[in-house]
Amino acid sequence: MSHLPPSPRSTVRRKANRGQYDPASIRAIVDQALLCHIAFNQGGSVHCLPMACWRDGDFLYIHGANNSRLIQSLLSAECAVTISHVDGLVLARSAFHHSMNYRSVVIYGRFSEVGEQQAKAAAFAAFIEHVSPGRSAEVRAASPAELAGTRLLRLSLSEAAAKVRNWGVEDSEDDLAIPVWAGVIPLPQRAGTPQPEPGAGQYRQPGIPAFLGD
Amino acid sequence: MSHLPPSPRSTVRRKANRGQYDPASIRAIVDQALLCHIAFNQGGSVHCLPMACWRDGDFLYIHGANNSRLIQSLLSAECAVTISHVDGLVLARSAFHHSMNYRSVVIYGRFSEVGEQQAKAAAFAAFIEHVSPGRSAEVRAASPAELAGTRLLRLSLSEAAAKVRNWGVEDSEDDLAIPVWAGVIPLPQRAGTPQPEPGAGQYRQPGIPAFLGD
Repeated sequence: MSHLPPSPRSTVRRKANRGQYDPASIRAIVDQALLCHIAFNQGGSVHCLPMACWRDGDFLYIHGANNSRLIQSLLSAECAVTISHVDGLVLARSAFHHSMNYRSVVIYGRFSEVGEQQAKAAAFAAFIEHVSPGRSAEVRAASPAELAGTRLLRLSLSEAAAKVRNWGVEDSEDDLAIPVWAGVIPLPQRAGTPQPEPGAGQYRQPGIPAFLGD
Repeated sequence: MSHLPPSPRSTVRRKANRGQYDPASIRAIVDQALLCHIAFNQGGSVHCLPMACWRDGDFLYIHGANNSRLIQSLLSAECAVTISHVDGLVLARSAFHHSMNYRSVVIYGRFSEVGEQQAKAAAFAAFIEHVSPGRSAEVRAASPAELAGTRLLRLSLSEAAAKVRNWGVEDSEDDLAIPVWAGVIPLPQRAGTPQPEPGAGQYRQPGIPAFLGD
């Protein structure tokens, strides 16, 4: 990925010390996302919709149905896509200094469509691998009709910024003696016990993404 | 909360059977949110930013610094606010029928400011209770200067819609005999072991929100 300087709109202004612009940091946050939120304008309103997503190379991918109005809107104008992980509650001694630990990435740009069948099939296989490593070789791959009925869009990560808070409490000196618990409550999201469909539990247990493992 | 019919823009169109419009369903999803994503227009671009949030009555609350450009933008135009919980990976026998279980709420409208000091203090106490029940009485409450330096905004939940998928695999009949594990991997987000700051671990353990408890 080209290491562009942040654009005016992607520069973190509020608490600028939390901004990160290097591609490795951005990729690492994107790679733990199952969902992104997409802001776009349509029909005179601004909208914010959650979409499943995955990364391949320097692009974030999403997919949608052939007749989706959302997909059509995303191809016709710029949008902003945000990925956020809430990692912990930061409990300070003062109400004012409570905070959260989080990692987020905001991406600006316009989605483009990947229409070629082989590229689509490869991207969807990568999507399956993202949610369950090792699984794409085990399931029935998408048929030509299924591929034709699904649109694949990708957005370059070239105009993106990360924002991260990953440290402890920042109370004022004056508050340090207040007799109250203070610290961080971690908030991991972890894969629970897989719940098989009737008749499908005897096969090899599904792979779990590393970021959801113990 | 008034039980308005969904507006054209809040009506769930894609997979409309997943739409829910009753206030109780919307509130239940909002009440488990630590973060929302806000879509808004500013400086010729659409933006999508994550913000901490909490509910009180029929309103979603957020806060920001006095000199925040975001806060100013939100007061001057409509926005869309989305809350999403990813609850599980739905692993089908075919690549095409993979899905996720989730609960989301989209809210449309314009934020208004709550400026009165007592109302602000009460709202911030509710915020502390949201992230750690029982804590607002233990920490140092916001000082007049801290309150004056923080802006409190709220958005009515009257134009909102929920979308929920909370069931198992939906494979085609033809695929049911494929010899692969199929089912749901739950993805709970749970509070981990609290990590106290040096010298602050001897006090009463912090309360954990019910939705993050075991």
